[in-house]
Amino acid sequence: MSAAELAAGAGRRRLLRGAVAGTLGAVGLAAASDHPADAAGGHAPRQDDERTLSIAVLLYDGFTALDAVGPYEVLCRVPGVRVSTVARTAGPVRTDTGELTLVAERAMSDVGGADVLLVPGGGNRGVVAMMEDADVHRWIRRIHRRSTWTTSVCTGSLILGSAGLLRGLPATTYWASRPYLEKAGAVYTPGRFVEAGKIITAAGVSAGIDMGLHLASRLSDEKVGRAMQLAVEYDPDPPYDTGSPEKADAQTQALALKLLEDAAR
Amino acid sequence: MSAAELAAGAGRRRLLRGAVAGTLGAVGLAAASDHPADAAGGHAPRQDDERTLSIAVLLYDGFTALDAVGPYEVLCRVPGVRVSTVARTAGPVRTDTGELTLVAERAMSDVGGADVLLVPGGGNRGVVAMMEDADVHRWIRRIHRRSTWTTSVCTGSLILGSAGLLRGLPATTYWASRPYLEKAGAVYTPGRFVEAGKIITAAGVSAGIDMGLHLASRLSDEKVGRAMQLAVEYDPDPPYDTGSPEKADAQTQALALKLLEDAAR
Repeated sequence: MSAAELAAGAGRRRLLRGAVAGTLGAVGLAAASDHPADAAGGHAPRQDDERTLSIAVLLYDGFTALDAVGPYEVLCRVPGVRVSTVARTAGPVRTDTGELTLVAERAMSDVGGADVLLVPGGGNRGVVAMMEDADVHRWIRRIHRRSTWTTSVCTGSLILGSAGLLRGLPATTYWASRPYLEKAGAVYTPGRFVEAGKIITAAGVSAGIDMGLHLASRLSDEKVGRAMQLAVEYDPDPPYDTGSPEKADAQTQALALKLLEDAAR
Repeated sequence: MSAAELAAGAGRRRLLRGAVAGTLGAVGLAAASDHPADAAGGHAPRQDDERTLSIAVLLYDGFTALDAVGPYEVLCRVPGVRVSTVARTAGPVRTDTGELTLVAERAMSDVGGADVLLVPGGGNRGVVAMMEDADVHRWIRRIHRRSTWTTSVCTGSLILGSAGLLRGLPATTYWASRPYLEKAGAVYTPGRFVEAGKIITAAGVSAGIDMGLHLASRLSDEKVGRAMQLAVEYDPDPPYDTGSPEKADAQTQALALKLLEDAAR
């Protein structure tokens, strides 16, 4: 963006804020602020931070985008929170369909601790690779040892389970993956998310948003959780009511699994 | 991943699929398949495609991740669909908080058409820049001319409006941004998403998931829409009920807008 465009943007921004203030009695679209982020992926603390809560989101080849982005979106604006994406090596990481790429800011070897660890689920190939990766398991256990919260979405709980974190604990996972969670020694427990000590596991894909709001409150307070629900306008009204296997007939279940299989790379 | 790991993964995969088949009478985790994608970001058609429906997701500096990833996640597995991320230039694109980066596969100048255009919203700085970018408006109008569906999430509708697409049409946007939608000549209409001819606008951030399911049905059929809702286990159960301004008190509204402003870069 040119300097002229920046200046024009700043003028427009003031205009927009004024207009919204008149309508809603509040600031409208989020205004730009100083928030430098260095090239290495680190972030300078916000000026109003009293403390920084670090959230490490593990990315891996074949992860499911919404598993990571759902919780990210409701956690990244919690006061004091810094979200980092972490992978075996820093750089681009492809999702389960191969059609979307996110960037991991940091390498696992450069991340020795985090207040919150978030492990998303993924397609079969990606999750199986993570379930068999001893290096990743060591890293997860290392972060877990000192984390405040260790969390997963969808089949991410199978990765936590493979790292040995879920033995004897209540936990949940993707609706079709319950047997593998039990193989890891966890006690399958229904729910959008299940809290067991400092471990929170969420059900499939979109359940990470619900868990994220819960975690937003835990990291801050309920006011922030409620405000973040409004900030992402999470007032769900899906056109159907087939979001769980209890609500979907056998044909819908079979088609869901076929669509997942057909789109996997 | 090494060849040995790949082979081990393949063995484990068969085992997993067998186990799930025994439990659910269906294939469990999505299995890997041949799905080559070339380095230029193009994709080879899936073998079972009868036709390919191209979805172009516009990314720009300061977009909101969930606005793009929510619809992506429920559209990418619709039979025959190919999703591409598009930006002014191909390469990494930072989100509104600066803490997450997605990769645009293709440059706008290389994309002359798409069956579906999806324009996500973003933070103030990013959206204002897009509202003032005549090149982007020309590209949007060019894609819109031959699209089957032209869609937006959140403040993405302000960008469609600035491109002149919404004059006199019913549309929606982020709850706090209604005045700017009306400035663009649209008729603000409440709803998780609003369909007006071939234009569908969704409300804030997470509403893109609801719109995506609707669009999945439009691009295929209702069975696919219902199955995709289950595929992403979208059975929402947020811990609060503050997802719209009608449900959130004035303090929650003010805090939501403050959190957005504080986290913007």
